Amino acid sequence: MTQQQVVAVMGRGALDPAEPVVGADDLGLTRGDGCFDATRIEWDGEGWLAHDLDEHLERLRASATALGIDAPSDDDWFELVGDALERWTGGEVGLKMVLTRGEEHRGHRPLAFLTLTEIDEHTLRQREGISVVTLSRGYASDAFDGAPWLLGGVKTLSYAVNAAARREATRRGADDALFVSSDGYVLEGPTSAVVWLKDGTLTTTPVGATGILDSISRRAIWAADVPWTLEERLAPVSDLLAADGVWFVSSVRGLAPLVELDGQALTSDVEATSALRVAMG
Amino acid sequence: MTQQQVVAVMGRGALDPAEPVVGADDLGLTRGDGCFDATRIEWDGEGWLAHDLDEHLERLRASATALGIDAPSDDDWFELVGDALERWTGGEVGLKMVLTRGEEHRGHRPLAFLTLTEIDEHTLRQREGISVVTLSRGYASDAFDGAPWLLGGVKTLSYAVNAAARREATRRGADDALFVSSDGYVLEGPTSAVVWLKDGTLTTTPVGATGILDSISRRAIWAADVPWTLEERLAPVSDLLAADGVWFVSSVRGLAPLVELDGQALTSDVEATSALRVAMG
Repeated sequence: MTQQQVVAVMGRGALDPAEPVVGADDLGLTRGDGCFDATRIEWDGEGWLAHDLDEHLERLRASATALGIDAPSDDDWFELVGDALERWTGGEVGLKMVLTRGEEHRGHRPLAFLTLTEIDEHTLRQREGISVVTLSRGYASDAFDGAPWLLGGVKTLSYAVNAAARREATRRGADDALFVSSDGYVLEGPTSAVVWLKDGTLTTTPVGATGILDSISRRAIWAADVPWTLEERLAPVSDLLAADGVWFVSSVRGLAPLVELDGQALTSDVEATSALRVAMG
Repeated sequence: MTQQQVVAVMGRGALDPAEPVVGADDLGLTRGDGCFDATRIEWDGEGWLAHDLDEHLERLRASATALGIDAPSDDDWFELVGDALERWTGGEVGLKMVLTRGEEHRGHRPLAFLTLTEIDEHTLRQREGISVVTLSRGYASDAFDGAPWLLGGVKTLSYAVNAAARREATRRGADDALFVSSDGYVLEGPTSAVVWLKDGTLTTTPVGATGILDSISRRAIWAADVPWTLEERLAPVSDLLAADGVWFVSSVRGLAPLVELDGQALTSDVEATSALRVAMG
């Protein structure tokens, strides 16, 4: 199935989406040596609204800094996003901004580009509820402590394991995967953070030594006026099975309530789901 | 510095190396979701000799199978390598063969291409000896057991951590990194296997649960007529410090004796180095 898409390259502007943009020697391609960030854009009646674009650009810059890659300025990105949106004729859309280290043998000049892609029906349906299986991420919950070369919290282009975990989840008849540390703690989804509610406390996994991504959606909830105590701590999977509600949060798919975990039905809380949706904007 | 390079794409043949080959929507680029393999090619006086090309194509196919990507036939690769070599005017050359899952939103048709790149002076010099620092790989030595989605032993395009580890080694004034498991065992280099000799026994780290790559150079040594007992076992870093000789082996750089590990001088064995070089072909 072909979905509507716009591609725009820094310094060149919008291109035919079928036109190649990256050379065979680019380290972003040959080594996954680069970073990206993504959010969704909606028409708010008067103009396009890119959710938390400032925060996503800030995180993209932090990823680039961790990798030692020069990032374009926010103004250059704003301009490129604007150029791309002029070509966009659809509705709600996923924005992905990508930065590579550039060509290995021809000067390492970073390449920056973006894609606008229609958010498909399949993803939209997942906002109603998803089934999830737990999969080991292989790392202990403190594996990233003092080891910056492991790129914990950096949104790199090296997502093969994330993609493989999602294929494994599909193979097991589930919609998505939840990574668990080798010492048994809840981490994150391949492209989502996880939050759960129990007795008025909303909990998530701490960033840092766990290596998980600092989720902008999760931060939006923490910054909003939600009626719960907020907590970050390591928790076993059994805490999710006993929760009053569990959600995956991410910028493109948005809020996805977990209805099943490893084949066990989870409690859902419709009111909390609404409150979280408001908090995420 | 620009190095001589030839780029050839399956179904298209040789192209200008500066011409982009991969689209912005290709999962090999946006997710590191693809695989590669690499070896070196030398002029043997009568024709080009690609070292262990059959074994590298076999491993590339195994990587593709693990990822669920359809790989081109060996004959198609042989033809593409031949086309590329017709353009090659230099000497000893690194061959990289790359396979991506294809475009996420336009049908997942795999993309296959190769590069021929001059082996630079810097790499050639490392065959004389390298200094290495140990870095944690974050995983325990049995992390990949029963977890195929972690892609242990699969040569994926998601090498950002391998690249970051080498940058960290450079930052510490060393030539390369040696990954160590979280439980303290020797694993592999970012792009090499490690072997060491002690009292007539040549040892390496086992593949499988460790997640390390099944090195074709290491296999060539094991298959050759070497005068040592051969052994695969988990070993602490102290075994390397006490060894009679330690080497990184890989297909492009070849054999690189370790002269220093974490700032400590290592014993070198010139005779064993010669014997290993012969064994690797």
